[in-house]
Amino acid sequence: MQGKDSALIVIDMQRGFISSLSPLYIEGAAVTVPACASVIEHCRNNGIPVFFVTRVYSADGSDVEHTRREAWLKGGKPLSPGCAEEISAAMPEEFGSDPRDYHIIKPRYSAFFATSLDLVLRRLGVNRVILAGTTTPNCIRTTCYDAICLDYDVTVLSDCTSSKTPEIQESNLRDMANVGAEILDSNAFITSYR
Amino acid sequence: MQGKDSALIVIDMQRGFISSLSPLYIEGAAVTVPACASVIEHCRNNGIPVFFVTRVYSADGSDVEHTRREAWLKGGKPLSPGCAEEISAAMPEEFGSDPRDYHIIKPRYSAFFATSLDLVLRRLGVNRVILAGTTTPNCIRTTCYDAICLDYDVTVLSDCTSSKTPEIQESNLRDMANVGAEILDSNAFITSYR
Repeated sequence: MQGKDSALIVIDMQRGFISSLSPLYIEGAAVTVPACASVIEHCRNNGIPVFFVTRVYSADGSDVEHTRREAWLKGGKPLSPGCAEEISAAMPEEFGSDPRDYHIIKPRYSAFFATSLDLVLRRLGVNRVILAGTTTPNCIRTTCYDAICLDYDVTVLSDCTSSKTPEIQESNLRDMANVGAEILDSNAFITSYR
Repeated sequence: MQGKDSALIVIDMQRGFISSLSPLYIEGAAVTVPACASVIEHCRNNGIPVFFVTRVYSADGSDVEHTRREAWLKGGKPLSPGCAEEISAAMPEEFGSDPRDYHIIKPRYSAFFATSLDLVLRRLGVNRVILAGTTTPNCIRTTCYDAICLDYDVTVLSDCTSSKTPEIQESNLRDMANVGAEILDSNAFITSYR
């Protein structure tokens, strides 16, 4: 029952990051969809809460990180209302849906930054967050550090997270392990957390 | 006058991180002291505010990151009142002091996490933070990401920041450049920010 006080946090797995048509495209993200879907199903079947923490930018860009606002504007305003369907905020159909899922919109990299995630996790008695999604050096890593700072234990799922290159993926998993995060692949997670 | 709306943030340059006697020792930190001292002097001489954001842990460890609490306890409680002088919260004498300096104690990695730094920077009209100190993958990087998320521009001083290995240093500077941070060495900074 290692998963008893855990929650799965699925971050930014949306067309605006997965599609090669988006200026915010992460090359490694699409290939992680099946592993993410397996983990999501496993958590739903084992009573582990599933949080989807995602982006929905305003049409005027007022909540886009200032360092990427220009690329976002020029690239068709991905993840905002009215943008092209291929670069929208929609998640992969493989993830399905469950009435017990939690959905939180975040305006920045970390799932904790200016969101209610910490408040809801505390209310649920969660002590460990399991991280999946994209991108490893940005949204996964900032969420990992914020989680540690808020006294959560952290597990990062290596084959459910993704980067622009394998080297970026590996160096970031190493740094997170160095500060105490558990790094597991989806099979090891499914075997040990139930 | 590129430095007009900037502030220097010097992070965790303290015996508890610089001394090889500390369990929190960062191998690359000691060698950055002269470059940090040059940058501090330059900022003081040019009216760029200097912030020292540092750790002072409680003797009971209640504000130590939970993932490092055991190492901290076993290693003589560095950076806390009553610990050995060699692993104390003191900063290098080379940094001197100036009545205009700002001093903020932080309880976690990021200089923004649970501190007044953002409030004070806004009051001063600062738009760009210049980051120096240790360690690059943890306190420098989390501060960089929080700064971007709070709409600051960020400069990271490559030879004033440090890591346990050169590879960790380089991969983290690369990731921060990828999200829009300016990476400069201390000479380039001193030449261009005044």
